[in-house]
Amino acid sequence: MSITLAVDVMGGDFGASVTVPAALKIAAIAADVNFLLVGDEAAILPFLENVPASLRARLCIEHTSEFVTMDDKIAVALRQKKRSSMRLAAEAVRDGRAQACISAGNTGALMAVSRFVLKTHPAIDRPAIMTALPTQGGHVHMLDLGANIDSEPAHLLQFARMGALVAGALDGHASPRVALLNIGEEEIKGSELIKQTHALLRDSGLNYIGYIEGDGIFRGEAEVVVCDGFVGNIALKSSEGVAKMIAAMIKTQINRNWLTKLLGALAYPIWRGLKSQMDPGRYNGASLVGLNGIVIKSHGSATSDSFAHALEVAMLEVRKDIPGLISRRFSEAAEDKNA
Amino acid sequence: MSITLAVDVMGGDFGASVTVPAALKIAAIAADVNFLLVGDEAAILPFLENVPASLRARLCIEHTSEFVTMDDKIAVALRQKKRSSMRLAAEAVRDGRAQACISAGNTGALMAVSRFVLKTHPAIDRPAIMTALPTQGGHVHMLDLGANIDSEPAHLLQFARMGALVAGALDGHASPRVALLNIGEEEIKGSELIKQTHALLRDSGLNYIGYIEGDGIFRGEAEVVVCDGFVGNIALKSSEGVAKMIAAMIKTQINRNWLTKLLGALAYPIWRGLKSQMDPGRYNGASLVGLNGIVIKSHGSATSDSFAHALEVAMLEVRKDIPGLISRRFSEAAEDKNA
Repeated sequence: MSITLAVDVMGGDFGASVTVPAALKIAAIAADVNFLLVGDEAAILPFLENVPASLRARLCIEHTSEFVTMDDKIAVALRQKKRSSMRLAAEAVRDGRAQACISAGNTGALMAVSRFVLKTHPAIDRPAIMTALPTQGGHVHMLDLGANIDSEPAHLLQFARMGALVAGALDGHASPRVALLNIGEEEIKGSELIKQTHALLRDSGLNYIGYIEGDGIFRGEAEVVVCDGFVGNIALKSSEGVAKMIAAMIKTQINRNWLTKLLGALAYPIWRGLKSQMDPGRYNGASLVGLNGIVIKSHGSATSDSFAHALEVAMLEVRKDIPGLISRRFSEAAEDKNA
Repeated sequence: MSITLAVDVMGGDFGASVTVPAALKIAAIAADVNFLLVGDEAAILPFLENVPASLRARLCIEHTSEFVTMDDKIAVALRQKKRSSMRLAAEAVRDGRAQACISAGNTGALMAVSRFVLKTHPAIDRPAIMTALPTQGGHVHMLDLGANIDSEPAHLLQFARMGALVAGALDGHASPRVALLNIGEEEIKGSELIKQTHALLRDSGLNYIGYIEGDGIFRGEAEVVVCDGFVGNIALKSSEGVAKMIAAMIKTQINRNWLTKLLGALAYPIWRGLKSQMDPGRYNGASLVGLNGIVIKSHGSATSDSFAHALEVAMLEVRKDIPGLISRRFSEAAEDKNA
């Protein structure tokens, strides 16, 4: 079955110059994937000039001159830009013309627009932002990363259920380990949110392994880490910050003098291996889970290679029918309750 | 003026085998520093056997056979172990026999015992845990890292004031930049705690530069980052986890085959430079600020080199009279209010 991906061409720091080449890259390797390129035709066409006709035939442009900027307030994106590339890409998913929407646009706007256009499943109170992160031995899925603050225990339980479903489907895990992000100080294991969520998770039927600390995320102690969006976003951004700092420090050390420059150049195979192991591009593409449709958020500063990775995440979620899985599981749970 | 440091010899994963050599190392290079080694004499003496008499004369053993384990609950540490090495080290500070207490023991117990023994300054509601972290260009001081959860705006304001004072005194900054840890999503800048703290900080007279995101911490955008202990602990631990993961990945890449092993060995000057720039040992030693006395918490798994760094942090805080500074500033503020 062929797939159509709706790309918000104008989103992100670099717009069409990143999103269109990424779509071309994926179209060239995935013959059953078509693209709906939503955005300013004048910005898109220059990137399609030398594209072979067979490939060009799988790309459809939906022209609009309106787009959401990285600084646009949510209210502006939602109420004043009803023909934005972001909005039209989400509507293409709602109307069945595409199976997923991918945007590098601003997260708050994308969440609000997607939620407005696609709605959440009736048994889910709030969608969450979920992404994979590298660990020492593989990767971990973490949610929520900033869609919600002041979550309640029932919300975190829903995040855990969605996370386990998605991680299980994407990685082929029958029973992914789910952990709740907490801090280690014994007396402090006292936050009411954490305590109550802990109790709910224990009785959830999930493969719940208990608390995990910040450093445990990256040791690969669980397949799914659940947290409130405020804490999750801080953990994610802090981790990115440290990784960037270390990369900058390695560069500084290499550029110290001619000898270190030479040694740094010689050590190229080590850097290449390291990059392929933890390149943030490989982890680009966060899912907005809980919506009636697939929406993937790319980093605003993504290169075309990492935007292409976000497109691959979208393809995988389409093939695994993530929204269908979530919908069926949550509907069953609701029926069980009513029975 | 000579200084006496009270060392909880028995604290941490390795007890006397780490703490006593660290004290000897510092005693050998700092002629005006004396040590009160609090712990089991039988565990301490073997490490003092070949110590020259002149150095030995600056080390005093306060024997006790009781100590707080890494797993002891706070209630046990506080109520049942009244002659623990941790407790006696804190009492030495209270009684003026030492100017600082250093422990690698469990954080919750150390905070509770220190607070019970030393009390907080009357104008300070809650002590906080504060540490320096490496940034791209230098370092940043961050607090609270886990002493408090569910902090109120007034507490975060106090943390900011203490943080600015300590950072200013330790680094010689006249007016350190203070930032409030937050997440970037515009709509979400809505946590009441964050909003209200933001308003208090704006009117505080501090050099407040506004919000900072997780990745901003490590870009060196501020000298002081303020947050609730839950979020701060998660940010700290996540960052440590990523740094460890990257170190492990570099090792994996080096050990891949004989060529990468050779290149890895050749690149030694790069690793050495990197290590000296971001060695966690260089950042060992968190301050429990807000108490009537200096208490420094070392990582439980510290080596003797990194425990020695925690001792250096203690020495610096003694020389800068951090508790005196805090006490004077907060007393003045209280007088201003009453005037």
